[in-house]
Amino acid sequence: MIIMMKYGAAQEEITAVIERIEEEGFKTHVSAGEQRTIIGIVGSDVQRLYGDFAGMIERFPGVEQTIPISKKYKLSSREFHPQNTVVDVGGGVLVGGEELVVMAGPCSVENEAQLLETAFAVKAAGAKILRGGAFKPRTSPYQFRGLGREGLKLLAKAREETGLRVITEVMAVEDVEAVAQYSDILQIGARNMQNFQLLEACGLANKPILLKRGLSATIEEWLLAAEYILATGNGQLILCERGIRTFETYTRNTMDISAIPIIHKISHLPIIADPSHGTGKWYLVSPLALASVAAGADGLIIEVHPNPDHALSDGPQSLTCENFAKLMPQVSWVAAAVGRAVDDSHEADDRFSSSKPISTVGLG
Amino acid sequence: MIIMMKYGAAQEEITAVIERIEEEGFKTHVSAGEQRTIIGIVGSDVQRLYGDFAGMIERFPGVEQTIPISKKYKLSSREFHPQNTVVDVGGGVLVGGEELVVMAGPCSVENEAQLLETAFAVKAAGAKILRGGAFKPRTSPYQFRGLGREGLKLLAKAREETGLRVITEVMAVEDVEAVAQYSDILQIGARNMQNFQLLEACGLANKPILLKRGLSATIEEWLLAAEYILATGNGQLILCERGIRTFETYTRNTMDISAIPIIHKISHLPIIADPSHGTGKWYLVSPLALASVAAGADGLIIEVHPNPDHALSDGPQSLTCENFAKLMPQVSWVAAAVGRAVDDSHEADDRFSSSKPISTVGLG
Amino acid sequence: MIIMMKYGAAQEEITAVIERIEEEGFKTHVSAGEQRTIIGIVGSDVQRLYGDFAGMIERFPGVEQTIPISKKYKLSSREFHPQNTVVDVGGGVLVGGEELVVMAGPCSVENEAQLLETAFAVKAAGAKILRGGAFKPRTSPYQFRGLGREGLKLLAKAREETGLRVITEVMAVEDVEAVAQYSDILQIGARNMQNFQLLEACGLANKPILLKRGLSATIEEWLLAAEYILATGNGQLILCERGIRTFETYTRNTMDISAIPIIHKISHLPIIADPSHGTGKWYLVSPLALASVAAGADGLIIEVHPNPDHALSDGPQSLTCENFAKLMPQVSWVAAAVGRAVDDSHEADDRFSSSKPISTVGLG
Amino acid sequence: MIIMMKYGAAQEEITAVIERIEEEGFKTHVSAGEQRTIIGIVGSDVQRLYGDFAGMIERFPGVEQTIPISKKYKLSSREFHPQNTVVDVGGGVLVGGEELVVMAGPCSVENEAQLLETAFAVKAAGAKILRGGAFKPRTSPYQFRGLGREGLKLLAKAREETGLRVITEVMAVEDVEAVAQYSDILQIGARNMQNFQLLEACGLANKPILLKRGLSATIEEWLLAAEYILATGNGQLILCERGIRTFETYTRNTMDISAIPIIHKISHLPIIADPSHGTGKWYLVSPLALASVAAGADGLIIEVHPNPDHALSDGPQSLTCENFAKLMPQVSWVAAAVGRAVDDSHEADDRFSSSKPISTVGLG
Repeated sequence: MIIMMKYGAAQEEITAVIERIEEEGFKTHVSAGEQRTIIGIVGSDVQRLYGDFAGMIERFPGVEQTIPISKKYKLSSREFHPQNTVVDVGGGVLVGGEELVVMAGPCSVENEAQLLETAFAVKAAGAKILRGGAFKPRTSPYQFRGLGREGLKLLAKAREETGLRVITEVMAVEDVEAVAQYSDILQIGARNMQNFQLLEACGLANKPILLKRGLSATIEEWLLAAEYILATGNGQLILCERGIRTFETYTRNTMDISAIPIIHKISHLPIIADPSHGTGKWYLVSPLALASVAAGADGLIIEVHPNPDHALSDGPQSLTCENFAKLMPQVSWVAAAVGRAVDDSHEADDRFSSSKPISTVGLG
Repeated sequence: MIIMMKYGAAQEEITAVIERIEEEGFKTHVSAGEQRTIIGIVGSDVQRLYGDFAGMIERFPGVEQTIPISKKYKLSSREFHPQNTVVDVGGGVLVGGEELVVMAGPCSVENEAQLLETAFAVKAAGAKILRGGAFKPRTSPYQFRGLGREGLKLLAKAREETGLRVITEVMAVEDVEAVAQYSDILQIGARNMQNFQLLEACGLANKPILLKRGLSATIEEWLLAAEYILATGNGQLILCERGIRTFETYTRNTMDISAIPIIHKISHLPIIADPSHGTGKWYLVSPLALASVAAGADGLIIEVHPNPDHALSDGPQSLTCENFAKLMPQVSWVAAAVGRAVDDSHEADDRFSSSKPISTVGLG
Repeated sequence: MIIMMKYGAAQEEITAVIERIEEEGFKTHVSAGEQRTIIGIVGSDVQRLYGDFAGMIERFPGVEQTIPISKKYKLSSREFHPQNTVVDVGGGVLVGGEELVVMAGPCSVENEAQLLETAFAVKAAGAKILRGGAFKPRTSPYQFRGLGREGLKLLAKAREETGLRVITEVMAVEDVEAVAQYSDILQIGARNMQNFQLLEACGLANKPILLKRGLSATIEEWLLAAEYILATGNGQLILCERGIRTFETYTRNTMDISAIPIIHKISHLPIIADPSHGTGKWYLVSPLALASVAAGADGLIIEVHPNPDHALSDGPQSLTCENFAKLMPQVSWVAAAVGRAVDDSHEADDRFSSSKPISTVGLG
Repeated sequence: MIIMMKYGAAQEEITAVIERIEEEGFKTHVSAGEQRTIIGIVGSDVQRLYGDFAGMIERFPGVEQTIPISKKYKLSSREFHPQNTVVDVGGGVLVGGEELVVMAGPCSVENEAQLLETAFAVKAAGAKILRGGAFKPRTSPYQFRGLGREGLKLLAKAREETGLRVITEVMAVEDVEAVAQYSDILQIGARNMQNFQLLEACGLANKPILLKRGLSATIEEWLLAAEYILATGNGQLILCERGIRTFETYTRNTMDISAIPIIHKISHLPIIADPSHGTGKWYLVSPLALASVAAGADGLIIEVHPNPDHALSDGPQSLTCENFAKLMPQVSWVAAAVGRAVDDSHEADDRFSSSKPISTVGLG
């Protein structure tokens, strides 16, 4: 951290600042310029001075401004950990490796038939992981709020029958154990990105975690939330961009596609994209899914419902199984165009046979 | 809700929409205009069709758009409850009544001496309620996170010694009982505004609640969060504007002062303002506090620390006890200018004796 | 437009509203429901009632809300004009047709050598249109502001020597004629999206126009700005997404990639993407360019500088000629993956010969 | 400006950066820390390196980040000019002095009768300056766009008859001369805040200027726009906060009341508030006007229309003459409560006689 004094700050003002810093256990490096004095703070855990301490120093007479010169996050930083993190979610499925991984399924688990029909359909189209909400956050108390633990059991059953891995959201500390018992990945939703107790409880559950970006979270705040999880010793963390809140009202959120290459640059964690929540409209899901892949996403999470006209939640943004099956070969082609593969060793079905996966034509 | 069909929608498209609505148990009212057909939905709990159902209907062939024509919230609406709600927080202190109520105290409870010194100082200046964080949400895991239950006990002690009422934040369902035991008001923070389990757990605790607006919550979403609490049967709810996230970087948040008169217009719930979090800088706290009062706020919540240069949290935005004592008479004068009183029957202290409260000069 | 009366609005309140509407020359259609009365307004140019008139009607006693039920824009709407607009910018270059069109060149025209070197390089890599600023909008008066008319002449010279088409920004009504004389496309910048005099002056110049989205413009406002141009009778209009202002500070703007498929859905106008201004950082330009193509963009506009370390403007976001040459084959591959072609009939150069354009492998 | 090198940057990387800076004519000050090297740039016009040059330096190998350590604006900065600027708009009216100044009048000048009726009414209530639009920026081409030069003449006539000063918006360089001829203050609207040609043309007209904040302008960008005007040598500049664009949709804009004390802290320029455009709804105008005054605004600009139900523009946000007359004494009381006077030496009328201006009771 650097502290800029005002033009003509008095010597006793400079001394007061230095003493306050040393009181905190840090050393200083003073550079008295022609115009102003600049005080540098030296120490390995200077992160703990950012925020409150820095702002407080700005209250001292003669101080113009404090300037952070190292990042606020550490464990999630690529500077700290140069190699890509690859998260093994079991069943041979790796997130953040060579292959793009697609997670798909209904917004809410509604009943066994709905879940199994969707699970088989998304598997046939190439998804590796089944998504499905058992606990649902709803902005209004007048909406369907999920089957709860019953939903978890149905997900486990679908895993058994299809061989897909399973991901579901956990909304409360008291549910972490149950979700960890049934699900392969613990999903932390956008509204809970700064629910710090939940972050830590999930971290300690020793399971892969998917952390969605908060609706109004900067990338720095997102990585600081990741820091809470990584600080528990659990490094199996996947980030998920799902749209941020802006003034635009046509879409529910604005997907920040640039977050994908930015995260790859500044962090070692894998990042996937959620175009379903990111747009809120089914007809925008495919273009934004392809855009995310083109920008380098390590995977996608997509809402699919066999009958969106009767979905209990998020019908407007769910793809039908048919539309999802049409999207998947395009995903493969775009992935190949940017040097990424999609494993399509699944058993083909009729809807899929006409596609000629680009990964066979030797591009990239 | 109204459903606008496209120009030239076919009769079978219209029929399909009507059947889907009737399937849900609602009646329709069809108006076939020259240019397009409009379908109205009739029923008292049409709120449950907003969001998912409405979006899903927009998937039907021939549908142009759905338009909600009643509000999504109900219990928090002034249409539903025309009289102002006045929340009795005990000790003769009413929020939402004639008198403006000021809550003040340190961001974090740090130790007994700090808390008591602050409590006596804010009482002397005219505050009625002591604020102080025992559980602290922190964006970074490298920051001080509060004394926890120890902090609650210190708050209770300060109440005993000063006679002030007490407010503190509850961050997790498992802490609701403990906080309710020690605190007169349960505060739900901005980051938890859509932590729906927490909203309900607090609602059921049968205590007055203060619900802060989320960083990126619209007023409608805020009232829908209030709805979760009101739906538990607990009507003792106070709203608190604390700034929203915008592109401006000079301040941590942008206080939406217009939310104060808007809430008074569309809801019966009292609303107070938090200029400390709303601005993040101590020198902006007083102007924004006065602005909030001028705009009609029912109260203020302000961070005060006897020694902000050594505060464990939020030092940058805390007023000193002296600055708080200087602010309070100005609050009284502005309150009087807009026809509102501040009770200043507290014992005066030296810092305060020079002020001549406007409430005695018969304005308004 | 629909007017919702309040519950229990009096008959004379309803009558007053109807009379005010009829005074404006429109007919009404009244639907008296059990709970409230709804008044519909009938007429072909109801657009002129939106905004002020609608807001004014909300002042009438007994009125709850007015609801627009047709779009505010008309000429730019796909409903009004179902076929895609294809803009012919001369020299056989069409924007909005089968082929993706790439515009590239320096932020500012600095001198003849710089411009020609860049022009030949971008042509060799596959660009069809040369961009270059002669008049530069700068947020600070202390920055380089362009060569002005001298720059226009250099652009014309570069066109002559390379055969590329030329696009440059016009910032003021008094420069429209000069820019139209030298440039094939008139570019209207984000800061001028609502400079209505400029919109009309450009419209009347009878040249193809590129209209960038304003920094904080909704899609609706953008199409209303387009409306100003189309209303002059000039239909040769291309839209350009260049990022919007959000709370995220890592990037200068947040590119709203979803605007691309949205514009394709609701408008007939072609839309291209500007990842250089959309991100402000050169290392994000390629991923966002590819994302835009994957989402269906009709073209790209990219800043390229032979020596960004000495660029007089926008150095941070400019690609080198080498990086641009590496990007172009990837653009072709992603375009092919989503069924779009890029014409690469240009003469190859060394940097390009190793790439195997996907358009030859028969995908899509 | 400070340049932080990466951990372990090579000596030749450091040298390359230093050479590039010296090439630009600046000296450097190198501080080789244990962990990283920091390069300071010394020179009085370092402002011209911000933005492009800084970003370009970040492209150099071994550079982590550049950090500006002096402000980007200069002439508008309080550091540069510690005394408050007081703008003399003629007729004895000063903006930025002891007294709060109120500007009021119709959104658009519609005809002589409407303008004169409003002018006399706002004068009677205590306004010193008449506002009225002759040239109107409209988001849609289907709306009323002002009387143009005819409107200017009516404003001049109203000035003659009432003795009020006059302010009106200028939208284009070619209209500056005409507006300067008829108006006492040139108003630059929010949409033109970065129309740099217009800023300079107005600056050169040698008239007081009112510069509104852009819809999505940061405070820094606003002061940089002010810099364009001040750099012409014209220091008679008033700033005006009129709301910024946020995600909230209840209001057209969100008034950033904190901008008022911030501008007072970092700049010497006076600042007034426009609650009419800042909220877009007439019933929010009075609370936000009072809030602005409580926060320290030097004045207000308010839309008043004798008959808002028939206003040609901005009817929804205009106060009636009666409501404006009710507001003015409250403005006086709040102003007095924060130590500010409002001159009310105007001839009283019936509506006003019951008020007892707080300025006589000796508060503060």
